[in-house]
Amino acid sequence: MVPTKQGILKKEVSFKRLSKLTNNINELKTTKANPLRRRNKKDRQQQKSTRQSVFRNASYGSHGHKKSSKKNVNVQSLTYVADESDVWRAHWAIEHYMLRGEFWNHGKFKTIQAYYWIVMTGVMQACIAYAVNMSSKVFIEKKFDMVAELLEEGAIISAFLKFYFVQLSFAMIAGACVWIEPIAGGSGIPEVKCYLNGIDLPNVLDIRTLFCKVIGVTASVSAGLPVGKEGPMIHSGAIVAKTVASGNVKNDRQLRDLVTCGAAAGVCTAFSAPIGGILFALEEGASYWGPSLTWRTFTCSMVALTTLMSLNQIGAQAFGRVGFDKLFSFGNFTFKEGGSNFSLYELVIFVAIGATGGLIGAIFNNVNESITHWRMEKVNISKKRRFIEVCVVSTLMSFVMFFSSLAWPNCKPIWSVLDQEKTTEQNEDLWEKLIQFRCEEGEYNELASLIFSEPGDAIKLLFHLDKHAFSSICLLTFFFLYISVAVVTYGIAVPSGLFVPSLLSGAAFGRLFGNMVQKINPNVAFSNTYALIGAAAVLGGMARMTISLTIILLECTGNEQFVLPLMLVLMTARIVGSVYNDDLYHIHIHMKKGVEFLDAELKSITRHHGLVAGQIMGPNVIFIRPVEEVGVVYDILMSAKHSNFPVVDTEDRNVLYGTIGRNALCVLLQQRAFGNPVEDSHFGPSRPNSIRSNYLQVGERKYHPLVQWDVLFKSYPRYPDAKDLRITEEDRKCLVDLRPYVNNAAISIQETSSVERTYTMYRSMGLRFLPVVNKYNQVVGTITRSDLTADSLAETMLDKGKKHEPINID
Amino acid sequence: MVPTKQGILKKEVSFKRLSKLTNNINELKTTKANPLRRRNKKDRQQQKSTRQSVFRNASYGSHGHKKSSKKNVNVQSLTYVADESDVWRAHWAIEHYMLRGEFWNHGKFKTIQAYYWIVMTGVMQACIAYAVNMSSKVFIEKKFDMVAELLEEGAIISAFLKFYFVQLSFAMIAGACVWIEPIAGGSGIPEVKCYLNGIDLPNVLDIRTLFCKVIGVTASVSAGLPVGKEGPMIHSGAIVAKTVASGNVKNDRQLRDLVTCGAAAGVCTAFSAPIGGILFALEEGASYWGPSLTWRTFTCSMVALTTLMSLNQIGAQAFGRVGFDKLFSFGNFTFKEGGSNFSLYELVIFVAIGATGGLIGAIFNNVNESITHWRMEKVNISKKRRFIEVCVVSTLMSFVMFFSSLAWPNCKPIWSVLDQEKTTEQNEDLWEKLIQFRCEEGEYNELASLIFSEPGDAIKLLFHLDKHAFSSICLLTFFFLYISVAVVTYGIAVPSGLFVPSLLSGAAFGRLFGNMVQKINPNVAFSNTYALIGAAAVLGGMARMTISLTIILLECTGNEQFVLPLMLVLMTARIVGSVYNDDLYHIHIHMKKGVEFLDAELKSITRHHGLVAGQIMGPNVIFIRPVEEVGVVYDILMSAKHSNFPVVDTEDRNVLYGTIGRNALCVLLQQRAFGNPVEDSHFGPSRPNSIRSNYLQVGERKYHPLVQWDVLFKSYPRYPDAKDLRITEEDRKCLVDLRPYVNNAAISIQETSSVERTYTMYRSMGLRFLPVVNKYNQVVGTITRSDLTADSLAETMLDKGKKHEPINID
Repeated sequence: MVPTKQGILKKEVSFKRLSKLTNNINELKTTKANPLRRRNKKDRQQQKSTRQSVFRNASYGSHGHKKSSKKNVNVQSLTYVADESDVWRAHWAIEHYMLRGEFWNHGKFKTIQAYYWIVMTGVMQACIAYAVNMSSKVFIEKKFDMVAELLEEGAIISAFLKFYFVQLSFAMIAGACVWIEPIAGGSGIPEVKCYLNGIDLPNVLDIRTLFCKVIGVTASVSAGLPVGKEGPMIHSGAIVAKTVASGNVKNDRQLRDLVTCGAAAGVCTAFSAPIGGILFALEEGASYWGPSLTWRTFTCSMVALTTLMSLNQIGAQAFGRVGFDKLFSFGNFTFKEGGSNFSLYELVIFVAIGATGGLIGAIFNNVNESITHWRMEKVNISKKRRFIEVCVVSTLMSFVMFFSSLAWPNCKPIWSVLDQEKTTEQNEDLWEKLIQFRCEEGEYNELASLIFSEPGDAIKLLFHLDKHAFSSICLLTFFFLYISVAVVTYGIAVPSGLFVPSLLSGAAFGRLFGNMVQKINPNVAFSNTYALIGAAAVLGGMARMTISLTIILLECTGNEQFVLPLMLVLMTARIVGSVYNDDLYHIHIHMKKGVEFLDAELKSITRHHGLVAGQIMGPNVIFIRPVEEVGVVYDILMSAKHSNFPVVDTEDRNVLYGTIGRNALCVLLQQRAFGNPVEDSHFGPSRPNSIRSNYLQVGERKYHPLVQWDVLFKSYPRYPDAKDLRITEEDRKCLVDLRPYVNNAAISIQETSSVERTYTMYRSMGLRFLPVVNKYNQVVGTITRSDLTADSLAETMLDKGKKHEPINID
Repeated sequence: MVPTKQGILKKEVSFKRLSKLTNNINELKTTKANPLRRRNKKDRQQQKSTRQSVFRNASYGSHGHKKSSKKNVNVQSLTYVADESDVWRAHWAIEHYMLRGEFWNHGKFKTIQAYYWIVMTGVMQACIAYAVNMSSKVFIEKKFDMVAELLEEGAIISAFLKFYFVQLSFAMIAGACVWIEPIAGGSGIPEVKCYLNGIDLPNVLDIRTLFCKVIGVTASVSAGLPVGKEGPMIHSGAIVAKTVASGNVKNDRQLRDLVTCGAAAGVCTAFSAPIGGILFALEEGASYWGPSLTWRTFTCSMVALTTLMSLNQIGAQAFGRVGFDKLFSFGNFTFKEGGSNFSLYELVIFVAIGATGGLIGAIFNNVNESITHWRMEKVNISKKRRFIEVCVVSTLMSFVMFFSSLAWPNCKPIWSVLDQEKTTEQNEDLWEKLIQFRCEEGEYNELASLIFSEPGDAIKLLFHLDKHAFSSICLLTFFFLYISVAVVTYGIAVPSGLFVPSLLSGAAFGRLFGNMVQKINPNVAFSNTYALIGAAAVLGGMARMTISLTIILLECTGNEQFVLPLMLVLMTARIVGSVYNDDLYHIHIHMKKGVEFLDAELKSITRHHGLVAGQIMGPNVIFIRPVEEVGVVYDILMSAKHSNFPVVDTEDRNVLYGTIGRNALCVLLQQRAFGNPVEDSHFGPSRPNSIRSNYLQVGERKYHPLVQWDVLFKSYPRYPDAKDLRITEEDRKCLVDLRPYVNNAAISIQETSSVERTYTMYRSMGLRFLPVVNKYNQVVGTITRSDLTADSLAETMLDKGKKHEPINID
């Protein structure tokens, strides 16, 4: 169907009708004189073809029935383009003029300041990561040592009780942290993704969240829950970045760039993967990437890694020598000189593992989605319930861990693994980590070795120990037990990452797969390669990241020869998984209330339906005039929640004069930047073109008070609220001259533009608000984030189908 | 200075005056009735504030004195946004309607087709890279074996003559290739960068260029010139990608995405660095990056690498086992289990190497720039001169290589290097590669070993042999000799890459540095680390790439532990180098005639000068009316070279109706989509609103002939030329109705927008032509690529300073 003007017009008319019914602002203003109507009468004879393009007495954004169910007033959009108003231009012109010719000009100072923040972010995030890692390691070791001692004495019941008690206590600490700051729960990756996407969730980057997150994740890892500390580290990096600069950064854009660096540092410290960190940040922020941001993330990652390596020197044997026992590592994947440990034809097997991993990931995501839906209805309604759930899951985990290990029948002698020719230093270390549990001296309990180890160690055991070390049945049991508990755990009220659980269960799965392949053809690779591939497959099936994940895993592995298998398996896992559902982060983002996430690319279906901007826009516009009555401004601020308003020049053909932000309006009213209208009989009182304000007269010249740009924005990010403004009845009749404050270089889009073009424009320019204009530059509607989400576009398409009326071609 | 409206207006007026003097199109049309003037008179009383915003009888783009010196008509811009006209909408609506509900719909078919091309690109590029690599290896080995045989016999003169003759012959073959296709000369990276930036240089992606490039680079490498084959491989990948899809891809955007994949495959095959390839493509194409393109480059790289590995199986000892003797490799940088080979404090030394490398790179770039300038004046004026230059440089190279080796006084016994405890398999291989030259059996000539090896082997010798293998004086001599010849060679008329020469000279420099450091403190790292760092520093100092280069070098090294030193050194080299000049590719791009390269980010100086769109635009606009006389269209096509024209509705307030491309106009005239005007006395003949064309009347309905979208674009990329159109005197009076073909969703920008905003818009939307409008949506100027280059902006700023007049504030 060709979208014609008639079609668009009809749709708009129906929207108009709808909004008239539901609109409460209507009543507010029907008594006022409507300058628009008058003007339209005046020159109707000249403008036959122009349709009424400005609708004063209406609201956009609420759009009748659309999107109302998911609205959450706390969520704000971030804005990444400056309002190019006259005061803005004046501010920067003065700034540059003042510092002209000076060596320490504004730009240099700002750059150095930014780099100082970046370096501080890197250093601090590295310290936090080190502290979390070390303390959780110590706690876990203490816990398992205690259990081992009691078991050796034969006191099973008291061992279990003590074990249970310790685990529960840690879980409760983690739960308490999330009680204090609910947004500290979960991995934090969805929240950081949202922030980089331009959605400002409340408290996400507060310092309180940082404390809760850091303490909470240490506790939840120590509690033996199947959670990782990698996601929370990324969140922590983002918060550190914001905290370091807090109070000094005065716009969303600069803050976003800093947070991007922080997230990169987070990934870098979590996985010791500096390039992985840069690419993670890039994948999330591709719409605003540029060379200067590349440099900043690069620096931040580098500083973080250097700090981490320096911290690793603490207690190192040879001081100064760089240790590569990273915070997070897959152990040493080095083989004999230049040797490889897989054959070319095994790539086909890897693809099969990737496909299975993608399937496992899809099932995991699906089950977790269902559980989360249930949880949102039943548990998340009160903090107490959430806390109790944590205790229940922790109890479940303790029982499963302890009694499955206890019930495991086989004890394996350590020598059965030992007498292999390839004895490396690393393997000697790992043998010491095998858990005896209830077995004799010199023997080990397979299942307990996986369960009662720190997850990072368990991964290494699976990656490096000889193929006889773990039997297939043990791997299968472990895989099912662990992944089942993990799927329940992700989403409870503790800080919890997803990487380590997926990698651990994936490693078990991969090793199992390797064992099976080896039964068919004993010539294939050593099973540790299969464990690595399996780990990548399951993680890829859940998280569906592309190059960033390849690089992260590659950096953890430390051996370039795995690049091809990893690429292959991650790609297969993603393709297979994507057939069934979205990645887990997206699922969780979509379940958040009021979050309007914009994907990097538009789904092709909208392209195929030939939607245009005029069909997806909110057709009802609240506008302000360049010189406006204070009462009108105040009423609009009080009644409409929008962050931006188009400024329409009703005196001059109704063209779009520019846009103005809610914050600027609030500050202007607070600063009382208004005056009395001049009673001029020639024009009549309704023509508000001249204002008698308190001006200073020097000779012939009148100096009008002008609110400077830095006054307007010094209160960032906490602007005065409309509710706090005191506007008297007398003030209401005053006029405010908005012209110097209006962004008169506003970006707008033609109503006939395709959705694809609109979407690209909105995303790549970093907009918050996009006025839709007709060819006379008159506003016919507005597009905000909520009009562009996949859900909203899908609804528009449905509407279009329903309201379809035959179009007359003549 | 605050840029005010007055300021902009004044500037514009001066431009107007200028253009009136220089304009030749003026004469062409002064006889015609100007509908604009009439309209302006009609409603002047209502539009006092509207300034005359459309200038029919003028041309944009030539801008008076600006940019005229660098104009080259052959260079075209690519356009990445579709013209969203009514026929375009109709085409896609029909396409989707026809295939509704079918499983094999358009999107799926297109995607599969695209992936087929991508896979083919990967496979073919891998084959080409393998062939080039193997053949050049064989040629070089044959050449050196021949020399060695003759030397053993003591026939120095005949050895030299034969050596010289072989080298010269190869150089002449390379020179001949560039004679046939001049654009095949050089590395090709600047050309690919330009293409991805949106500049279509003639013949860059032709299949003839591919043949010349591939044969030429094999010859130039075999000729012993200090050139690498890596740059040409990237160019070859880009051409392969275009060739594979040629004839099937019908728009610039799809072609650009394919070429991006091809470039990634090129890097991947050149360095066996798949991730490096993806990132190289990303750094160049950051303005249009998205997830789907990530997947495509990912796939292309993966396929190329797999093919390469399969090809490596040819002649391998154990079939099926994956060999990691890659095409391009730094050898095996594996150390004892988890051991590192540098200390934390050595990072400071690495920074020093980075700084020195940056300096070396800057000097190299500067010298090469001067030589290139000289070359452009004296040599590049005829093909014969260029060819002779190749012969001269080849002769020089042969003399330097042979006689410096011959004159080298020291012969070292191989055992002096052998008797080290660390004897690895790799080193044994490398010892065999040491060159005896004129020394006794069991001895080797240091300098000859570096000069008479294949450059890749020489790099490995420097990276891996024991520190006693090469004396400092030998390294110093080699470094100066090699880099001096390299600086002369880059830019002569042979296909030549830059990576290997920089890496080789850098490795010598780094090893030298390491030797010196070791004299101060013998505890520092093994000198191979220093060689690696030095290589990275010099390459980084010339090429100034960031993450892509880090990843490429990391993938060549194959050991993750070098990530931090490499990051550090590349960053330092870039910072230090950037103080002095641009990277070498940029230097060469800027020296190309008619190339208007847009950097990823605007230089901050323009921001500080507060330029707005109205100041940088070309203020003289050639426009077309929605319904236009054929004669006018034809004259405009013949007289103006522009690729896009704004369509201005002179009947309706002079608003911007849309834009139309030159190609569409040519096709419309060729298709004779015009008719006779209806002589209607009511409107008079000058109002061209109704056309009597050959319509089909069925009952009440009239079917007008409409040129469909696929007719308009089937001739991509070779559209009919305006010169080939046959327009009779009678045709000239006919009217063409452009309304269905006009892009009526054109992206435009307000004249008050800052340059920064304009630049971001132009780059991120992938535009070729940006109309500048005032608040009534009337065109006041146009911005094309040439208005946004750094040079052009700098000129505008200077103009602004010169023409500065005090502004009255009242």
